[in-house]
Order: sequence, then C-alpha cells, then structure tokens
Amino acid sequence: MFIRNCWYVAAWDHEIPADGLFHRTLIGEPLLLYRQADGRIVALEDRCCHRQAPLSAGRREGDCVRCGYHGLLFDGQGRCTEIPGLERVPPHVRVRAYPVVVKNRWVFVWMGDAERADPALLPDNFSNDHPDWINLPGYLHYDTPYLLICDNLLDFSHLSYVHEKTLGGSIKIAQARAQIDKLPQGIRVTRQVPDVPPPAYYRRMREFTTNLDRWFIYDFLLPGTLLMHSGGRPTGSASGTEPALDPTQPSADSVNLHSCQTLTPETEHSTHYFFQQSCRADQGDAAMAQTLFDSLLVAFNEDRDMITAQARNLAAKPGVPMVPLAMDAALIQFRRLVDERIAAERPA
Amino acid sequence: MFIRNCWYVAAWDHEIPADGLFHRTLIGEPLLLYRQADGRIVALEDRCCHRQAPLSAGRREGDCVRCGYHGLLFDGQGRCTEIPGLERVPPHVRVRAYPVVVKNRWVFVWMGDAERADPALLPDNFSNDHPDWINLPGYLHYDTPYLLICDNLLDFSHLSYVHEKTLGGSIKIAQARAQIDKLPQGIRVTRQVPDVPPPAYYRRMREFTTNLDRWFIYDFLLPGTLLMHSGGRPTGSASGTEPALDPTQPSADSVNLHSCQTLTPETEHSTHYFFQQSCRADQGDAAMAQTLFDSLLVAFNEDRDMITAQARNLAAKPGVPMVPLAMDAALIQFRRLVDERIAAERPA
Amino acid sequence: MFIRNCWYVAAWDHEIPADGLFHRTLIGEPLLLYRQADGRIVALEDRCCHRQAPLSAGRREGDCVRCGYHGLLFDGQGRCTEIPGLERVPPHVRVRAYPVVVKNRWVFVWMGDAERADPALLPDNFSNDHPDWINLPGYLHYDTPYLLICDNLLDFSHLSYVHEKTLGGSIKIAQARAQIDKLPQGIRVTRQVPDVPPPAYYRRMREFTTNLDRWFIYDFLLPGTLLMHSGGRPTGSASGTEPALDPTQPSADSVNLHSCQTLTPETEHSTHYFFQQSCRADQGDAAMAQTLFDSLLVAFNEDRDMITAQARNLAAKPGVPMVPLAMDAALIQFRRLVDERIAAERPA
Repeated sequence: MFIRNCWYVAAWDHEIPADGLFHRTLIGEPLLLYRQADGRIVALEDRCCHRQAPLSAGRREGDCVRCGYHGLLFDGQGRCTEIPGLERVPPHVRVRAYPVVVKNRWVFVWMGDAERADPALLPDNFSNDHPDWINLPGYLHYDTPYLLICDNLLDFSHLSYVHEKTLGGSIKIAQARAQIDKLPQGIRVTRQVPDVPPPAYYRRMREFTTNLDRWFIYDFLLPGTLLMHSGGRPTGSASGTEPALDPTQPSADSVNLHSCQTLTPETEHSTHYFFQQSCRADQGDAAMAQTLFDSLLVAFNEDRDMITAQARNLAAKPGVPMVPLAMDAALIQFRRLVDERIAAERPA
Repeated sequence: MFIRNCWYVAAWDHEIPADGLFHRTLIGEPLLLYRQADGRIVALEDRCCHRQAPLSAGRREGDCVRCGYHGLLFDGQGRCTEIPGLERVPPHVRVRAYPVVVKNRWVFVWMGDAERADPALLPDNFSNDHPDWINLPGYLHYDTPYLLICDNLLDFSHLSYVHEKTLGGSIKIAQARAQIDKLPQGIRVTRQVPDVPPPAYYRRMREFTTNLDRWFIYDFLLPGTLLMHSGGRPTGSASGTEPALDPTQPSADSVNLHSCQTLTPETEHSTHYFFQQSCRADQGDAAMAQTLFDSLLVAFNEDRDMITAQARNLAAKPGVPMVPLAMDAALIQFRRLVDERIAAERPA
Repeated sequence: MFIRNCWYVAAWDHEIPADGLFHRTLIGEPLLLYRQADGRIVALEDRCCHRQAPLSAGRREGDCVRCGYHGLLFDGQGRCTEIPGLERVPPHVRVRAYPVVVKNRWVFVWMGDAERADPALLPDNFSNDHPDWINLPGYLHYDTPYLLICDNLLDFSHLSYVHEKTLGGSIKIAQARAQIDKLPQGIRVTRQVPDVPPPAYYRRMREFTTNLDRWFIYDFLLPGTLLMHSGGRPTGSASGTEPALDPTQPSADSVNLHSCQTLTPETEHSTHYFFQQSCRADQGDAAMAQTLFDSLLVAFNEDRDMITAQARNLAAKPGVPMVPLAMDAALIQFRRLVDERIAAERPA
C-alpha cells in the first residue's frame, strides 16, 4: 500500500533522453517517460492496454509512442490514435497518463487522481539547481521497502555508528536530543551537536584546526523527501541566534551544506533513492562537488548495507515486534502520517 | 491447469540418446525419456515412487532403468521388477509410463489417460522429415506461460512491428484482415498480403527485383501446434486461384516455405518451443537451410523478448484486464477451445 | 516446525574467531556467536530488539557487542547495558541469549527453554577430539530440508548405488538386512556385510589382498546426529563375537573408523552438515586423515546431488505420496520420534 495522491520523483531530468523511451517502475506501476518535441516530459503507464506489452519496448513517432507488439499508437495524453487494420479507434482504447512536473532537475509524477495534482505540493528542492549551490546528482537502488530508508533518515543517531568513519565521527550526534516539530506535510527535525571533531568528509573538503559546532536541520516531507541544511562552525564562534539556518550568510570558516534527497517506492520491496548534497558555490568548485559526492556515496552504501541486512531479518520473521525508544520519535510520527494518508485514500 | 488428453512434443528425436537418460518436464511433470535396445523411446515419470528421487539420476540396465538412490529397477512399462533386499516386489510399486509416438522427428508424449492415446490425433508435421523439404531443427526455452506464445502465433499482425526488420517489412501485414476458420482440433488462419517488399529474410535467400504477393496459411491445433504454408510470388504473377496453397507446384520465382512449430508447457510459467521452417529441396540446399534457420532464430528471439516483457507486466499486476481488438479473433477462439477442453477433463 | 528443546551444533569450535562476530542461522533464527575474553562462546539472537538490525553487523566492545545501527550495547546475557542518549536502560530492552556448550570441538546451542538445557543430553562425539583418533573437520551446506538428509543417513542401502564407486562397492550392502534398536534419544542401526570387496576409499588407504567383512554400527540421535563405528576385516578372520564393536582392539589387518556427523536445520529448506570420519591414530597419520577427508567429501557430494534432486521433485509437487519399503524402517521410526517431540513441545 502506498500513498497515491502525491508527487513522487521518477527520475533526474537528465535521465530522460531527448529521443528514446525511458522505463521506471513507481509504487508497483510500470511507467514510460519520454520527451515530446517541445522538451516536455510525458508519463504513461508502460503497459499497452491491448495485450499489456510494455510501450517502452516500442518506438517514438513524433510526440506519440507506438507499441512494438501490434502497433497501437498512443499520444502524450494516453489516447490511442491508430490501430493497424481498424478504421476507427474506440475511445476506451487508451493508457493512463500521469501529470508530470519538472522542478529543479527532479521529474515529479503524480500517481493519484490527476485532477488533484497540485504543483503547490512540490517540495522546495532549490539547491538541486541554484546558482549559489553546486552538487552532483546521485541515485541508488535499494532492495528494501522504502519506509525502512525513511526510518533511517528520520533518526540521525545512526550517524555515530553506521557512519562513524564518514559522516559521523562522534557519539555526541547520537547523544544529542533532536527537536521535532510538525509540518503540514511532514516533520521538521533539528539537531545541534556542539564541540565535536570535524567528520571525515569535512576533512576531505579542507583543513580544520578546531572542534566544530554542528547542526542538522531538515524537513522530512511526504511521501519521502528530505530537505536539509547542515554544517558546522568553529566551536563557540556563533555570534547570533542560529545564523547557520540562513544559508545566505555563511562565514569563511564554516561549512554550509544543503541536501535534497527523496525516496520513491519501486515495489513493496524495493526503492529508488535520488539524492544530492550541495555546497555553496562561493566555498567550492567542481572538484569539491566531486569530493562531496564521493563521500556521500560511500556513506549511503553504509546505510544500504545496514538497511538491507535489517530488511533480511524483518523478512525472515515478519511478526517480531520492535522495541520503540526515544530516538524513534520522528520516524514513529512520520509512519503515522503515512498510515493516515493511506487510510484517507482508501475507498469508504 | 493444462489439457492432459493430447499429444505434447517432448523432444526432437535426436535429443534422446541411444544410451543414457534424458530428462524434461512437461506440464509440470518430470519425465524420463530413454531408448530401449530396439530404438523405441520410453517415457516414465521421472520420480521414483519410493523416495521420489529422479530416475534420470540413475542408470540404464538393458531396457530398464535403475534408481540411483536405493536401487529399485523399473522396466519400460514403469513396473518395478527388483527391490534390493526384498524377495518379492509388491505390484503397487511402479511409476507412471506414458504413451510415446515418434512422428517426423518429433517425440510425442500423451500426458492423459493412456487408453485414450490416439495416433490419429497427431498433427501432420510432414515437412519435418520429407525428401522434398529441407530444414534445421530449432528449440527455444521461454520463461513465460505457453498461452502467451500461442497468442503471438495466432495474430501475425505482430510481424509488422516485432519483426519489422526480419520476417515482416511492411505494415500491410498488420493491415490485412485474416480469415479465420474453425477446425475440429483448432483454427485455420489465412492471411494474404499483396504487393509488399520482400522481407529481409527472403532477401538473405536470394535477389528480388519486384514486390511480392505474400501468403500465410496455417492450422493452429490443440494443444499448441502451428503447421504453416507461407511464401511469396512476384506481385500479380498468380495465374489461378490460390495456387500458392499447393506446395507441390512452386514456380521458379516464388518462395515456398512450410513450417512446423509447437509449444509444450514446461510449467505454468515456462514453455518449450520446438520449431523449424522448411524450404523446398529443389529451391535450396544445406546452406539455404542454415540461412533460414539463422533468420528464424533472430526473429524468434524478437518474439521471446517481447513476450517475456509482456509476461513481466502481467505477473506484476495479475488482475489488469486486456482490451480485445479485432486482430485478437483467432487467439480468443483458441483460448476458448483450450478452456473448453480443460473444463471437459475436469472430474464432475 | 523444529524441535526446540535440544542441542544443535552451530559451528566447529575453530569457526568462532578470538575477536570478531560470527553469524549463522539455526532453525530459522539468526544467531550471533562470539568469544568473550575468557574464551567462552556467547550465542545471542542476531537481531537487535530495537530496529532488528543484525548485531553481527556491529562490533565487539570487551565482552559486549554494540549494534552498528543505533549503538545499543548488549552483554553476553543479552541485556542492554547502554542506549545512546538515554540515562537509564529499560529492563525489557534485551535480546535472547542461548545456552552454549563446546564439547569435542562442536559448538552446541540450546534453542529451547534455557532452564531445560541439560549437558547430559549432549551426544558422545568423542572421536572429534581424542588422542587415539585423527580426522579433519568437514562442513557442507544443503539447500534441502534437514529430514531428507536424516533419511539418507538412516538407510545405508543407498551406499550400493549413490556411492557405488566411493564408499560402497557392492550391492550386498543394500541386500543386508539392518538391525534396528530403539534408544532413549534415537535409534541404533547395525548392518553387517560379509565377504565384499574393499570399497574404493579403503583402497585409497592401503592395499588389500582379500575380501572384507564390513560393519556399520551407529546411533542416530535427536535432533540429527550420527555416531558410527564402521570398518572391515579380512573375510572370516573374526575370532570372537563382534570384536569389531570394540574400537580399542583393532587388529593390524582391519580398518577401524569412527564418524561423528550432525545435521542442523538452517531454515525449513536448508541445512548445515557438520561431519568427520576418524581413523585410529595408530593406523594413520595426517596424510591418512586427508585421504579419508577427501574420499568422504566426494561421497557426501554424491549424497547432496541426489538429495537436492529429490528435494526438487518433492517441492515441484508437494502432495505426491511415497511408497514405504522395508528398507525405510529406521527413517520412519526416526521421523516419528521427531514428530512426537515437536507435538510434545506444542503449547496445549
């Protein structure tokens, strides 16, 4: 069961070729994505209504796609406009078309009722494509349910253990109490970690001579998007009240990052993970973007190894209860939000 | 669910060695096939009745087979004739034996009631083994249900799309209306396609200077056998009424082919595909047979790719309905025949 | 369903490192095994009670293990002694600890009620670690249910067929009637086979000039342990009544072996097989131990091939009945013992 009435990221913008057909499965449904002549991206159900062959095994013809099995032709709205050997196409011959919006290099697809597709619900993934920020786009495939990865992102105490040698570097991260605030579409998590050594991936960016005060401030929004300011400054150097929250005012000796990450279920048991971590353009260059990307990839593979091992245990004995702890507050709240949304979408 | 009271092709004749044991699974049942000293082929259930080890993991002893696990010996009728350590073999110790007929290089096995096995029901697969025709035998394994491949063979409109660059070459094949006639054991499909360019695989056979009038005339018989005359002649050169139907009267400038193909379910989700396409011996030689075989194999892999992709879509969401179109008439009729036969075999 | 209140072998002693964490699944439950500073082996459920990550993906800290996901620390009794960010650990935060005994190089774990763990129930696997006997330790993994391997070991008539060219060498083994006696925890099987050629693996040990009288005398004990005296002496050379039973009195021209083998279910469909076959230290050396090990491994792979093929047949059609024969007496009795024990453990 998945939330349907929401925007899921289906791809990075650059994954959809100018010509050609792109397949990806979202929440169990096969999608065909392609660009029309004007560059706009179309999302159709990747299953011909005739014999259910994937349309992505067919070919582009102008702004249409022709099924490669028996030649039915569909336009970008999913209407069949030609059936070989038939004079007239019955109007019920069509495939589902999904609303698509591209925003800051993410291709969002609305998997629910098309008339409810509201661009105002798109997350503010500004740093994916902003002159003040630089990054490289990332993608990982998980063979686990997507909520396990949400859990991971909603409790950064794991940074002290899973990422001890990469993103973490101090048990103080796990010891810090996170502040949790409700948002209309999710949860805000604020974690301040004073006076810790700079983590390994900061040290790959530049030299440090002092401990840092670190911060992680993120919104985690339905269906599974993390938008995070994080960073660190020399311990005790903060002058005002949380200036770190203002990414437009970094100091020369601070690290200021912004990250956009999103989880899209592929099936009940597998997940697409799109991510980036940006540094400020006035603090880095292409080499720095690459360094950040490489560090993140190592760390995100640490997560994937752990979550995949966890998923194996869960799958081997589905009924075993978990013991909730204080650190689970955010993930418990988020799972409740997901459950409520799925229940609300269920027909009465 | 499969039809049981019918002949299924289990193997090409040459696949069953003079000595040794050959295993193949048909409609979910493991079969052991081997030759007796007189060359006759025996088919036994490949499952010792004692502890269910496959007999094919044992060894031949004369016209018998000895189980390789605990040494029970079975004759070609499936009777156990020796149990190590026992004086007398109880008569209920036996494995199932299946009627076998070899006809024109195909090894047919009757999977239903042995007393109903009727050689008159064997298809007329003459061109498999006929002095006037030459071919090479083919085999493909499919990881899909067998009815999806029957569907494919019952609607040649797919030649225009799946085989655009191999067997097809013109959208006129899809546009031509096929004539469908009932047969006692299946369906006859006749498709005439006038004035089309010779397809790529004809052009690998020889040079053409004109368009062709092509024909495909085939019987598709239960459980899943295609017997087809096909060919082409220079457009407008036909003198009488469908002389193409008479394979004994080819002209020097026509292409005359006969094909025998058959589908045998391995399991609910996998299929054996035995096939050949013959050309007339007075129009070809061993090199021509190889050319035809190579072309066919390329094309049949195009089918397999498409049908496997279709099967993935079907398996991912089993309940999705298909939209029937005019081109599906033959396959709908054939599926109805299969359903009727299965229902008729069900115990009251 | 498995018997729980019994000792299962989890590993050879040497498999558990001095440092580090060792994972193995027993009867469907993931286990973590590690050594404390005093060398004693601890067995914990390999599933953190918090979010079910495997503890084996964490790290040792003194005699404790720290979960690698969120840092919970557990001692060798499974008690959580530290939760990052919490002052006090609630007492219900713990993982299951299992009684462990190491006896003669086998690491036994009690999978049932800890208070019922009784070392008196450990089998007498003396030859694993005895100055008079030499061997090499063996391990095989099976992708089959463990009872199929018990069946195999409870009916040595298969030696004549599965192991014709290795351990067997004569159909007289299958023809000999085994004597079967009840034991408190299993079954004793005695099989005398007079006047047979020495089997291939004896001939790899040394030269023989006569036929042998062979014997196989073993206890097969719950849950699945074989303890066997076997051997052979020149035909007719026995002076008293079954002196072969006394392994302390071998003659110069006899072969005297002792074997300890045990089957531990991994899951319902897979099994761990720990085995050795010892020869007397006064009749062999390290080279002889290697020769015996190599012979046994070849033979045990013959078993595994056959049993895996049998398991495929069983899985393909679960309802097919087996035909019981006289040779199945021991395995039928043993399966009944297993069923009774499982039934007795079921809550009323």
